[in-house]
Amino acid sequence: MTPNTKLPNEFDLAKQLQVGRSTIREAIKQLESKNVVTIVRGSGTFVSHSTGQVEDPLGFRFVKDKKKLALDLCEIRSMVEPNLARAAALNATAKDVDELQDLCDKVKELLELRDSRHAQADQMFHTKIATCSGNQVIGKLIPIITGGINSYYAITNSEYARQTAPITHQGIVDAIRARDPNKAESFMRKHLTQNLEILMGTYDPHEKI
Amino acid sequence: MTPNTKLPNEFDLAKQLQVGRSTIREAIKQLESKNVVTIVRGSGTFVSHSTGQVEDPLGFRFVKDKKKLALDLCEIRSMVEPNLARAAALNATAKDVDELQDLCDKVKELLELRDSRHAQADQMFHTKIATCSGNQVIGKLIPIITGGINSYYAITNSEYARQTAPITHQGIVDAIRARDPNKAESFMRKHLTQNLEILMGTYDPHEKI
Repeated sequence: MTPNTKLPNEFDLAKQLQVGRSTIREAIKQLESKNVVTIVRGSGTFVSHSTGQVEDPLGFRFVKDKKKLALDLCEIRSMVEPNLARAAALNATAKDVDELQDLCDKVKELLELRDSRHAQADQMFHTKIATCSGNQVIGKLIPIITGGINSYYAITNSEYARQTAPITHQGIVDAIRARDPNKAESFMRKHLTQNLEILMGTYDPHEKI
Repeated sequence: MTPNTKLPNEFDLAKQLQVGRSTIREAIKQLESKNVVTIVRGSGTFVSHSTGQVEDPLGFRFVKDKKKLALDLCEIRSMVEPNLARAAALNATAKDVDELQDLCDKVKELLELRDSRHAQADQMFHTKIATCSGNQVIGKLIPIITGGINSYYAITNSEYARQTAPITHQGIVDAIRARDPNKAESFMRKHLTQNLEILMGTYDPHEKI
């Protein structure tokens, strides 16, 4: 079944499967909690988008030390995302590059306006690079990882991040547009290193790199 | 609340929170489906281990092309695990090394017996290396990733894997024991490359590497 497909109503499902309506109700609730179906009040029950993916699947909300969590997540990003930027430079279509530029512009604009939605736009920017890589699993992982950082440690609220993120983001997009995998990888590494330094409080804006 | 803490019974909870028992029952079921609590029939409801982590959190069971899924997962492993082997060589304690050796021996033994539980032991071996790295998130991710490969594509059922896995596993353990990060990283890379080649059907046992 494809996303958005509407399920038969409780009464018809109960009849079709020869079980009681309370059993159907219980099953639907279980499927909803696993994000297999989405219940829209007044409209019915539908097959979910991103079927089976639940919010906060790794239980980040239960991790006590949020700073250590953010550092661990940054470390994973630094293992994965430079490779993804490289793959994106090799695989992105012209349409992908346009979308990346739009997202890059949106993050910049929201940061300038000090609008907190920049965090979500930033997540979409990095997720777009991940999906350009062609790896379908990593496109699911990146929003979980970047979301985990954003939720607990609003790194991009820092004045340094406000200044550096738009510059390194644009460098990544330009390198992907130019089909230059080495440059794309290197700009992504620079971007993540800056983020990590800001997070650790060791960032020096006067250092030339 | 720590794992294994027992929750008050339905009746007491309903009284304490001033809601109906059916509300409590419903809430408990929702928490169970998100693995916050575990219901043990006849004993009661307990706080879960690995709180909030659900089985198949990324919805792998809904991905149609299982071979592409396995290849995508292998690609992620190749980005992450060589770094983890390196970190393990720097951080593992003597006790960690003993545990790794035990797991390595167990995988070898189960592979020789053609016992399908080798897949689970293999997963524990790779997860142990991940946790030795000190990164708490990656210790949660590795079982999901390796589990995703094992469930759908029993690569280690191949005769080649039966021959090569114990050798490269032992190489990784020896390098970690010798505190040699370069060697640990390189053996892990070799191991994952062999797995990938076996999966793609391009592995050549006579090629010298």
